Amino acid sequence: MTAIAIYDTTLRDGMQGQGMSLSVEEKVRVARVLDELGVPFIEAGFPASNPKEAELFERLEQESLGADVCAFGMTRRRGMRADEDPALRVLADSFAPVCTLVGKSWGLHVEKVLRVDRAENLAMIAESIAFLVERGKRVHYDAEHFFDGWRDDPEYALACVRAAAEAGAENVALCDTNGGSLPEQIAAAVRAARSTGAALGIHCHNDAECGVANSLAAVAEGAVLVQGTMNGYGERCGNANLTSIVPSLQLKLGHECLPSLEGWTEAAHYLDELLNLTADPDQPYVGKNAFAHKGGMHVAGVNADPATFEHIDPAAVGNSREVLVSELSGKGTVIAHAGGSLDDATAARVVERVKELEHRGFQFEAADGSFDLLIRRETGDYEPLFRLESWRVISEKREDGRVQTEATIKIFVDGQRYVRVAEGNGPVNALDAALRAALGERYPHLRDIKLVNYKVRILDEWKATGATTRVLLDATDGTDTWGAIGVHENVIEASWDALVDSLEAGMVRSRAPQA
Amino acid sequence: MTAIAIYDTTLRDGMQGQGMSLSVEEKVRVARVLDELGVPFIEAGFPASNPKEAELFERLEQESLGADVCAFGMTRRRGMRADEDPALRVLADSFAPVCTLVGKSWGLHVEKVLRVDRAENLAMIAESIAFLVERGKRVHYDAEHFFDGWRDDPEYALACVRAAAEAGAENVALCDTNGGSLPEQIAAAVRAARSTGAALGIHCHNDAECGVANSLAAVAEGAVLVQGTMNGYGERCGNANLTSIVPSLQLKLGHECLPSLEGWTEAAHYLDELLNLTADPDQPYVGKNAFAHKGGMHVAGVNADPATFEHIDPAAVGNSREVLVSELSGKGTVIAHAGGSLDDATAARVVERVKELEHRGFQFEAADGSFDLLIRRETGDYEPLFRLESWRVISEKREDGRVQTEATIKIFVDGQRYVRVAEGNGPVNALDAALRAALGERYPHLRDIKLVNYKVRILDEWKATGATTRVLLDATDGTDTWGAIGVHENVIEASWDALVDSLEAGMVRSRAPQA
Repeated sequence: MTAIAIYDTTLRDGMQGQGMSLSVEEKVRVARVLDELGVPFIEAGFPASNPKEAELFERLEQESLGADVCAFGMTRRRGMRADEDPALRVLADSFAPVCTLVGKSWGLHVEKVLRVDRAENLAMIAESIAFLVERGKRVHYDAEHFFDGWRDDPEYALACVRAAAEAGAENVALCDTNGGSLPEQIAAAVRAARSTGAALGIHCHNDAECGVANSLAAVAEGAVLVQGTMNGYGERCGNANLTSIVPSLQLKLGHECLPSLEGWTEAAHYLDELLNLTADPDQPYVGKNAFAHKGGMHVAGVNADPATFEHIDPAAVGNSREVLVSELSGKGTVIAHAGGSLDDATAARVVERVKELEHRGFQFEAADGSFDLLIRRETGDYEPLFRLESWRVISEKREDGRVQTEATIKIFVDGQRYVRVAEGNGPVNALDAALRAALGERYPHLRDIKLVNYKVRILDEWKATGATTRVLLDATDGTDTWGAIGVHENVIEASWDALVDSLEAGMVRSRAPQA
Repeated sequence: MTAIAIYDTTLRDGMQGQGMSLSVEEKVRVARVLDELGVPFIEAGFPASNPKEAELFERLEQESLGADVCAFGMTRRRGMRADEDPALRVLADSFAPVCTLVGKSWGLHVEKVLRVDRAENLAMIAESIAFLVERGKRVHYDAEHFFDGWRDDPEYALACVRAAAEAGAENVALCDTNGGSLPEQIAAAVRAARSTGAALGIHCHNDAECGVANSLAAVAEGAVLVQGTMNGYGERCGNANLTSIVPSLQLKLGHECLPSLEGWTEAAHYLDELLNLTADPDQPYVGKNAFAHKGGMHVAGVNADPATFEHIDPAAVGNSREVLVSELSGKGTVIAHAGGSLDDATAARVVERVKELEHRGFQFEAADGSFDLLIRRETGDYEPLFRLESWRVISEKREDGRVQTEATIKIFVDGQRYVRVAEGNGPVNALDAALRAALGERYPHLRDIKLVNYKVRILDEWKATGATTRVLLDATDGTDTWGAIGVHENVIEASWDALVDSLEAGMVRSRAPQA
C-alpha cells in the first residue's frame, strides 16, 4: 500500500489546547521522541513569534534531527509584497528546510475575517509560496477551512488548492479547521480536490468525535500526508489523534507510515507526563485499559486464541494484554535501560520492585533518575550522599498576613553531622536550600544542578486532603536532564524524596564526588 | 430523513468500564434522565443476575417510564430447551416489554468459546427468540462479533442474522464487540446484512477511536437503531459515544432521533457527576472547551458570523459559546452568574477583579464557590466565618523515619479567640482538622461539609520548587457540590485559602449559621 507521510503538529497546534505549556527544553524532548519514532515532519511553530520560539528553533537546529523541522507561518499580509513581509522573511531565514504556510480557502473567511477580495487571497497564497520556494524552502500549504469552503463554493476552494500547488507547494493539507465535518463529507471533498493534481494532506480536528475517521477517509481518497497531534492534543476537542491514526493506517490498512510502532505506547505516555496530564486509561491502542480483559470467558477465550477478544496484537503498539502496569514491567526493558549490564535475576528483582512501587503510585516513565537509583540499589551499587537524621519544616501565616517558611535538616555526610536551616517561599524550596547548604561543602558539583520542573499530582483525589501525592522533579546540570519521583500522603515528604533522588541521580551521572 | 431509534446501554454495557459503579437509586436516576431526553430504549441489565439487578427492575417498573426498558440476556444454553433455560424464563417473567438477547455470529467463537457446532448455535438463536416472542416479548438480537464473523465467514454471519430475524426479532444489532473495525469495513458488512431483510441496529466500541464514525457509517448503509452509551462509558476504550452520535445524526445528517437536544450538555455532565468522574473538558459537543474561542481573530470572526469558527450553534446541544476564562471576562456573564441581581458597575468591578486574579494564576471555571464569595466581597455581602490571627504547620521526618504533621491555628469567631491544634497525614489535612475543631462549636453545619477532591497544579513549573501553586478543592454537603481555589507560591497557603473558601462558600449556601 501507499506510504503515508506523518506530519506532527503537537508542538504548534497541539499547544493551542487549554492549559498546554512546555518549556523550550521540554519541546526539544518532544521533538527527540518524535524523531526516534521516525516521524518525518515535525512542525515546531513560528520561528520568532516570541523569544521562547526563537530559542526553540536554535535548539532544534543543534539537535540535527532526522526529521524535517517545519516552520509555520501565514500567507503574506494583504497589499504587501511577499519579499517585504517581515514574517515571511523570518521563515525564509529559518534553518528549517520546510515552511508550512496557512491561508484561507473559504469565501466567508476571506470576506468577513481577512476582509480582502477573493482574487487578492489567491495572490497572497501564490506569491507567498513562490517567495519561499525561491529562497530554497520546501513549502507545505495548509488550506484552512477547506471543507467548509468546499461546501460553500467548491470552485473557489479548489482554486485556492490549485494556486498553492502551481506556486510550488509540495503538499497541500486540506484543513477541517472547525472540526465538525463527517467522514463522508471529507471523502467527497478530497475526491474533488484530487482533480487539482496537488499532492494532498489532511488536517482534522475532533469536534464531532470523527477526527480519526476523517483522516482515514481522506487517505482512502488519496491524501498522502496526515497532520495531527500525539494523544490528540489541541484546542476545543483536540486535533486528529495520530496515536490512533497511525496504528490503524499501518496495522489495519497496510500503509507504510513509521518504521516501527513498538515504542508507540511509551511515547504517548511520556508526552502526557511531560505535559503533566493524566494518561487516559481508556485511550485506544495505548491506554492501560485498551487490552484489559475481565475475568472468566474473556480470559479463557484469549487463552484459546487471542483474536477472540483482541482487535490487534497489543505488542504491535508496545502495549500489553494484562492491564498495563508500565513499560518497565518486562525484564528485557529493565536490562536495556541499564545498558545491558544486568543479570537476569537482578532484572527480575527490579521488575518486582517496580511493580510494588507502581502499586503504591510510583511511575517511572518520566523519572529516569529515580529509576537509575532503584537499579543501583538492587545491584548493590548505590551509595547515598548522606544519612538523614531528621528534617523539620515550619510554615506559618503570621498576624500581619505574611507567610514564612523555614526548614531545618540534620544529616550525616561521611560521618560528620550537619545541622542547617534555610528559609524558602514554600516548604520544598526551603528544604532544597537547607539540604544544599549542608551538602555544598562536600559536593561542590551540586551547585551546577538546577531543579527545572516541579509537578504535583493527586492520585486518589476523592480522598481530598487525605489523598496520596505524587511529585515529579526534573533536574539538569546544563547538559543532561533527568527526572525524579516521590510518593507520599504528605506532599512535603513526597517532595523531599524526589529532591534527594534528583540530587543523588545527578551526582551519579557526574561520577564520583570531588574531594 | 429516516427516524433512527436510540438504544442506550449505559446501565448495562457502560457499567463494564473500569471503576464504574452505581447504586440502584443512581441507576434509576440515570434512567429518568434518559427518559426525559426521550431515549426510546433503555437497557437496564439482566433482571436477576444479582439482588441489586432484581431490585433495579422492580424500581424501574414503578417508574412507568415513557421509554421501553430492555432486559438483557443470552441465548439458551447448549443442549437445553429454551423454555427450560432458567435465565430465559427470568426474562420472560420480567416486566420489561423488550428483551435483548446476545448470541454468537463468528465461527471462531462458536468453536473456541461456546464450543458447540455451528448448526446448534443457529438453533440456540432461533429457539431463544421464538420462546420470548411466544411469551409476548418484543425481542432485539445482539449479533456479537458480527463484523469479525463477517470478515471470517460472511455466509455464516449472515445466517445468524437471518435466523434471528426469522424467529421474530424486531431488530438485529450488528456488534463490533472487539471494537477495532474501521468505518469502511462496517459499511461493507452492513450493506451485506441488508440482504437478510432484518431491521438492523449497530453496536460499536471505540478501540480504534472510530466508535462514532462506525455508528454513522452503519446508519448511512441502512441501520435504523444505534446502541451506545452516554459519554462513551464502557470497557477498554469505551462504547460508541451517544453524546456525539446523536447530535451528528440529528443536527448534521437530518435524522430524527430525540425530540430536543437542549438538555444534552446538562445530561452528559450530570451522568459524569453521578459516576464521580471528571467531565472531559475537551469532549465533543458537550465539553466546556467544545466551543471555546481564543482571543483576537477568532472572537472577531465569531462576532462577524458565528459560522466562521463554529461547526454548530452550541445552544442546539445546550452548550454555550463563551466558556472557561473568557466566560467570566464579560459583564453579562457575571451578571447571569449572580442570578441577575448585580448592577452594571458592580459587575464591571467583578470583571476587573477576576482579570487581575486570573493574571496571578486564579481560574474560576471550576471554583464556583470562590467565585460566589468574590461577588459577595464586591457587593459588600460578604461576612467571614472567622478572623485569622495566625496558623502554623510543623511537618517533620524524625530519626525513626516517621513523618509527622501538626497544625496550630489561632482565630477569632464572634470576638472569641480559639486556639486549636490537630495532627494530619499532611499539612493540609492537619489544617483542615484544626480549623474544623475551632469552628465546629459555633457552626455545627460544617460537619456536613466534606472535601471530596483536592487538586494541585504547578503554574510556572520551570521555577521548580519556587513555582506558584494552584489548589482546587471540591466540597459537598451531600446535595450540592462547589469548588474553591487558592493560589500562592507556598502550597500550604494556597491550600489554606482554598480550604477557607470551601467552608465559607458552603456556609453561604446553607444560609445563616445556627446559633
